[in-house]
Amino acid sequence: MQSFETLSQQFATRFQTDHFPAAPATLYDPNRYFLKLGGKRVRPVGVLMGNELFDTIVDDAWAVATAVELFHNFTLIHDDIMDAAPLRRGQPTVHEQWGPSTALLAGDVMLVKAYEYLNGISAKYIVPINRLFNNTAREVCEGQQLDMDFEKHDAVGLEQYLHMINLKTSVLLAAALRMGAILGGAGERNQNLLYEFGRKLGLAFQVQDDYLDAFGNPEKFGKQVGGDIKSNKKTFLLIHALETASGSDKEELASLLAGNAPDKVERVLAIFHACGVDAWARELKDRYLQEALTHLEDIAVLSKRKEPLRELALYLIHREA
Amino acid sequence: MQSFETLSQQFATRFQTDHFPAAPATLYDPNRYFLKLGGKRVRPVGVLMGNELFDTIVDDAWAVATAVELFHNFTLIHDDIMDAAPLRRGQPTVHEQWGPSTALLAGDVMLVKAYEYLNGISAKYIVPINRLFNNTAREVCEGQQLDMDFEKHDAVGLEQYLHMINLKTSVLLAAALRMGAILGGAGERNQNLLYEFGRKLGLAFQVQDDYLDAFGNPEKFGKQVGGDIKSNKKTFLLIHALETASGSDKEELASLLAGNAPDKVERVLAIFHACGVDAWARELKDRYLQEALTHLEDIAVLSKRKEPLRELALYLIHREA
Repeated sequence: MQSFETLSQQFATRFQTDHFPAAPATLYDPNRYFLKLGGKRVRPVGVLMGNELFDTIVDDAWAVATAVELFHNFTLIHDDIMDAAPLRRGQPTVHEQWGPSTALLAGDVMLVKAYEYLNGISAKYIVPINRLFNNTAREVCEGQQLDMDFEKHDAVGLEQYLHMINLKTSVLLAAALRMGAILGGAGERNQNLLYEFGRKLGLAFQVQDDYLDAFGNPEKFGKQVGGDIKSNKKTFLLIHALETASGSDKEELASLLAGNAPDKVERVLAIFHACGVDAWARELKDRYLQEALTHLEDIAVLSKRKEPLRELALYLIHREA
Repeated sequence: MQSFETLSQQFATRFQTDHFPAAPATLYDPNRYFLKLGGKRVRPVGVLMGNELFDTIVDDAWAVATAVELFHNFTLIHDDIMDAAPLRRGQPTVHEQWGPSTALLAGDVMLVKAYEYLNGISAKYIVPINRLFNNTAREVCEGQQLDMDFEKHDAVGLEQYLHMINLKTSVLLAAALRMGAILGGAGERNQNLLYEFGRKLGLAFQVQDDYLDAFGNPEKFGKQVGGDIKSNKKTFLLIHALETASGSDKEELASLLAGNAPDKVERVLAIFHACGVDAWARELKDRYLQEALTHLEDIAVLSKRKEPLRELALYLIHREA
């Protein structure tokens, strides 16, 4: 049983290989550039850990992990176009550097490359792995579309937001773990439990992400605090505040959202505190984390095999605020 | 042995099914809209005809044909974004109707759907069909990138242009036919010959397309003649003219390309005639068509089985100018 860190380093080393042909460089250099920007590689390591929970890591797991990471990078390149984001991990995005048309095509070909890796695994796993991969890919697209739809809606309920976040961010981690479980020979029940572990962990992670954007320590969080508030982004926090604030808080929140007051962040945070949004979010995060860990406990393998996944959950959720 | 028309109608009927879930409608309605715009469905029928050249059409051929047509539509949706095209088949494009972000995602999910169909075919064909599909998908992206690169270059040679056209438009028809051949149980040699038939036919078709844009009868061609000339589009004709014009023709052509004279189309056409570009293009088209037909003749099946493919070639290339 290997830790997240060990597997992440191993994956990073293997992933450094050149995944693309030399020519045309105008298409593939952007892909090479983007993959070099790095990342925590949580999802591909999820494949490896899902596999190792049940058996020794098989060769196919590395190919599937690579496909999952390429898929994730395809979504990032295309999301950056849609969000008109200038930076990714502190560096210019692909569309910023090479224009939106090349970014669009670079993303497309990144997705095709993911499928090429999937087509190289043992014949008996191709159908089930591709089925899960395709379903998940479709769900991630749906989640991104819902996220864009919500930007145009005034009222987004907590249920709707949860549904969107589940599709946009949770199912890929869940599916990565489950693909590993399939390759490890896990039965259907264990596969489902591991999938649910990943899904709940993803939700806990998103609550935490929303929380840190508002209440995090800027030095440790690594990005500007209050960005979501400034841009009126619908988050767990804002949605809960809009659902629970009353009287003058409710009115002030509405008027703050309608404008760009210089003290907007401080005043919205004050309302969040007054509504108890911070405590609520911490509890929600803990609940999802607890549910995730319960699913993990229920998986029918020796408890000590689960240790790396338990550590991963705590590492992802208890990162420094 | 069924004709292109018969198979095209059968395919159109089957393809009318709803390929996408109901929700989110904001994502899938654009896909449904785009598929309803229609088209000649040449590529999916290529799969069916490639199959029937060797054997009775199998169920898998319909699934692969569907995947090929969904892939083609994915490229059209994304190409329309890149070209900022307002219309497709006389109707607003997806990005024009729903914005570029939704068009981007609608294309992405169309591609994923294509892979879903491929994952449903008989296990023994999944790997070879996906390998060819993936290679082709990558090549089509490369062709589109080269096409965009060429817009920025002053000098594009005939060889380079051929390479681009081959990737952007020929390999998909070639691969469609070959996928059908694989499903029909064809051997490697016959597969290669059919692939080359499709590739050469694609090149002949593109020469013809470039030719008609300049020399076609506007009433029969169905679109404005001279569009490529007005936009300085690199075509077989312009590239050949730039390579062969000399003296005053060469100078005049350069100055016409640098400006937007009201009589630009007429004057460029006059230079084309002076350089013999029209006769050259007709000969080039005939040569590719002849090479295609020779490859078809070399395929080791009874000649009468080839009749529908021969007819398809003549139908595609001798369409009314």
